[in-house]
Amino acid sequence: MVSALATPADLIGIKRDGGAWSREQIAEIITGIATGSWADAQVGALLMAVLLRGCSVDETAALTLAMRDSGRVLDTGPRPALRVDKHSTGGVGDKASLLLAPWVAAAGVEVPMISGRGLGHTGGTLDKLEAIPGFRVGLSAEEILATVADCGYAMAAASGDIAPADRRMYALRDVSGTVASVPLITSSILSKKLAEGITGLVLDVKFGRAAFLPERAAAEELMDSLLEVGAAAGLSVTALLTDMDRPLGRAIGNALEVREILDCLHGRGPADLMELTEALAGEMLLLAGVAGDDAAARETLRGRLDSGAVAERFRRNLELQGGPADLLDSPERSLAAAPVVEEVRATESDGGFVADVDPLALGRAAMRLGAGRRVATDTIDPRVGIVCRVARGERIEAGGVVAEIHAADRASAERERAAVAAAFRIAAAAPEPRPLVVARRRASPG
Amino acid sequence: MVSALATPADLIGIKRDGGAWSREQIAEIITGIATGSWADAQVGALLMAVLLRGCSVDETAALTLAMRDSGRVLDTGPRPALRVDKHSTGGVGDKASLLLAPWVAAAGVEVPMISGRGLGHTGGTLDKLEAIPGFRVGLSAEEILATVADCGYAMAAASGDIAPADRRMYALRDVSGTVASVPLITSSILSKKLAEGITGLVLDVKFGRAAFLPERAAAEELMDSLLEVGAAAGLSVTALLTDMDRPLGRAIGNALEVREILDCLHGRGPADLMELTEALAGEMLLLAGVAGDDAAARETLRGRLDSGAVAERFRRNLELQGGPADLLDSPERSLAAAPVVEEVRATESDGGFVADVDPLALGRAAMRLGAGRRVATDTIDPRVGIVCRVARGERIEAGGVVAEIHAADRASAERERAAVAAAFRIAAAAPEPRPLVVARRRASPG
Repeated sequence: MVSALATPADLIGIKRDGGAWSREQIAEIITGIATGSWADAQVGALLMAVLLRGCSVDETAALTLAMRDSGRVLDTGPRPALRVDKHSTGGVGDKASLLLAPWVAAAGVEVPMISGRGLGHTGGTLDKLEAIPGFRVGLSAEEILATVADCGYAMAAASGDIAPADRRMYALRDVSGTVASVPLITSSILSKKLAEGITGLVLDVKFGRAAFLPERAAAEELMDSLLEVGAAAGLSVTALLTDMDRPLGRAIGNALEVREILDCLHGRGPADLMELTEALAGEMLLLAGVAGDDAAARETLRGRLDSGAVAERFRRNLELQGGPADLLDSPERSLAAAPVVEEVRATESDGGFVADVDPLALGRAAMRLGAGRRVATDTIDPRVGIVCRVARGERIEAGGVVAEIHAADRASAERERAAVAAAFRIAAAAPEPRPLVVARRRASPG
Repeated sequence: MVSALATPADLIGIKRDGGAWSREQIAEIITGIATGSWADAQVGALLMAVLLRGCSVDETAALTLAMRDSGRVLDTGPRPALRVDKHSTGGVGDKASLLLAPWVAAAGVEVPMISGRGLGHTGGTLDKLEAIPGFRVGLSAEEILATVADCGYAMAAASGDIAPADRRMYALRDVSGTVASVPLITSSILSKKLAEGITGLVLDVKFGRAAFLPERAAAEELMDSLLEVGAAAGLSVTALLTDMDRPLGRAIGNALEVREILDCLHGRGPADLMELTEALAGEMLLLAGVAGDDAAARETLRGRLDSGAVAERFRRNLELQGGPADLLDSPERSLAAAPVVEEVRATESDGGFVADVDPLALGRAAMRLGAGRRVATDTIDPRVGIVCRVARGERIEAGGVVAEIHAADRASAERERAAVAAAFRIAAAAPEPRPLVVARRRASPG
């Protein structure tokens, strides 16, 4: 029995020895972390104890709520049930958020989306948005709420007053080998989302080579934790388990991905990207109660796309967040283009079918070109990246072009040519189709 | 396989995942800790991973040697085999070092003893020495060597350049709940002792209520680790497992303990204190090759005591380290006395035998009187403490005096009266004798 006057070492010792923390003890720990009264060494030891000993669903929910309450929580609107968001565990070419937010906003759902930046081969929504000249992601809580009230959605970076405990823990996890803990990942994701004042959350949990957790079993473990802890913390949660064993869409790289989204706003984007985004959007409509079943959600969504309402929301959001007025009509005037564009041809001489496109190899090549960050302090070149000209299962002629490299200079393009070519495997026979969404699970409070 | 360019997170990850570090990886970790290139959060996570995953003997030996080599190592003398030291895991009333060092020095063994301070109910050798007015424990490496060359021993605090990696790790362990790790305790103890340039080490590993590890099995586990790792690091090690279920000697408190030692220097100290110190001293003579067997060691030691050579070494050391010249002859002129001395009588009204003296209760009472530190920043009052007037197994009359409280004022003496009285249990029958030294084990390199 540890008293109310427990020291950090006492509280760490409970988890070290395999015990469980009470809700009050968790609140004390998170307050100590957020205010700085806990030293870095104490936080490091605590994180490792959690990683190695684990936390129950109740502990993780208490951790999540305490982390949310370490900072500001957005006021809920007059109809809080309509406020729903989406979180993806990250992938290559995943620009779904940029289409999803205006799409569900056009259907009447409020989306105050607070996003992160990319690291390693994984792209980040904020980096893609910042490829749009003038677009401001540094919104105050008031600006987020005002933007949502006007156009139905906002896309912003977490400001300093959102979940400061998570900010400190996340930075220390990154350097101390304590990233790969399901309770810590769960509470980090959910605390920031809960700070948006949402009532529902749709999760895109990815598995496959370019996913944060490549093994399907590990991804499912995280999915179940997010569902159970989310529900215990008061959210209605729907999770889709999706395939990240291929790039999503054709473009990888920030301005290139924005360009791809502009097609999507009118329903003309790549099939896989449209399919996944529609599936996620449908779940958000169901959670918000805007649609009663899958078919109704799908019909609503297609109607909004066809009417031009989605593009209209996007246009209005650009006005509010500072993007160029003519982005949709003349994207080439606003989006910076790479000075060097080189075609890459298939390594194999015989034609056939694209049997595999390795998303991890392409994500890493794009990162090396400057589209991503090796370490968090790297700067990003919005112009560069890779555009796939073929996708898995498509036919290709002998010596056909598989991709374009968009590079800052010829030398860097040539350096990646072999890696990009090797990412495409050509075979005589068409590969078995691979479903994009492989599972759906739901959890609700109580 | 982690490359030579491994990050701290990579190196922490090896232990987190249950793996073993190579010697080179351990050297890299300890260099990072000593130079400060590792951040506190990384050290905290590493310490917790070691605590929960453990280290092999080889890893702990490599850790120990890397920690030793993070700072200065004393030059060995012309006859390095003669340089031997002792380490105790700490207890109540344990002032053996103050008698032991001049005793074995008088028999021809070099003892460059680097000691620590007390915390909680456990007294520290440096605190006892500092009860001697003018005595300097802050010696440079050169001063330690010069003092040893002159009188055969020196008693000093670890200077900043001795095992700086241990200094940082020890401070961070204390606050982060990572103290109780056998590999971390082992490497902390041995790295500092190895920095003395010794070839042999005698360990007094205590068990019982007032010991650092009260359970005998836990104390034996630490003893075995110290033996195996010490031998793997190149030391000849002898360990005694000793009983800390009663105070050692009669005096608890710094000036009171120095006063007790002055009697011991002529062989007139309490039987238990003389017995333990002689046992430890005998092992040191055997390790140094000064005596061939137990009987010869004992004969040499008694001869030195009877001849006055031990007191002479003590007197010479006082001259060299700055103590008062007349301490042995007129201790009352040098040692500060408490203004209040109160007798405490047995709680039981009937006489009989002292069945138990609780060392933890007395150690804590002495700490509260000001003889010890609750936290590391507390200051010590050298005058205060407790003197036991009876020991376990002795006869006592009805209402007889069991102890004296030496206090800074009457109020603090009265506050401890009940606790001190309750520490003595009187029974009609004499208790079973309890041996002081219960086991001896040895280990040597190769």
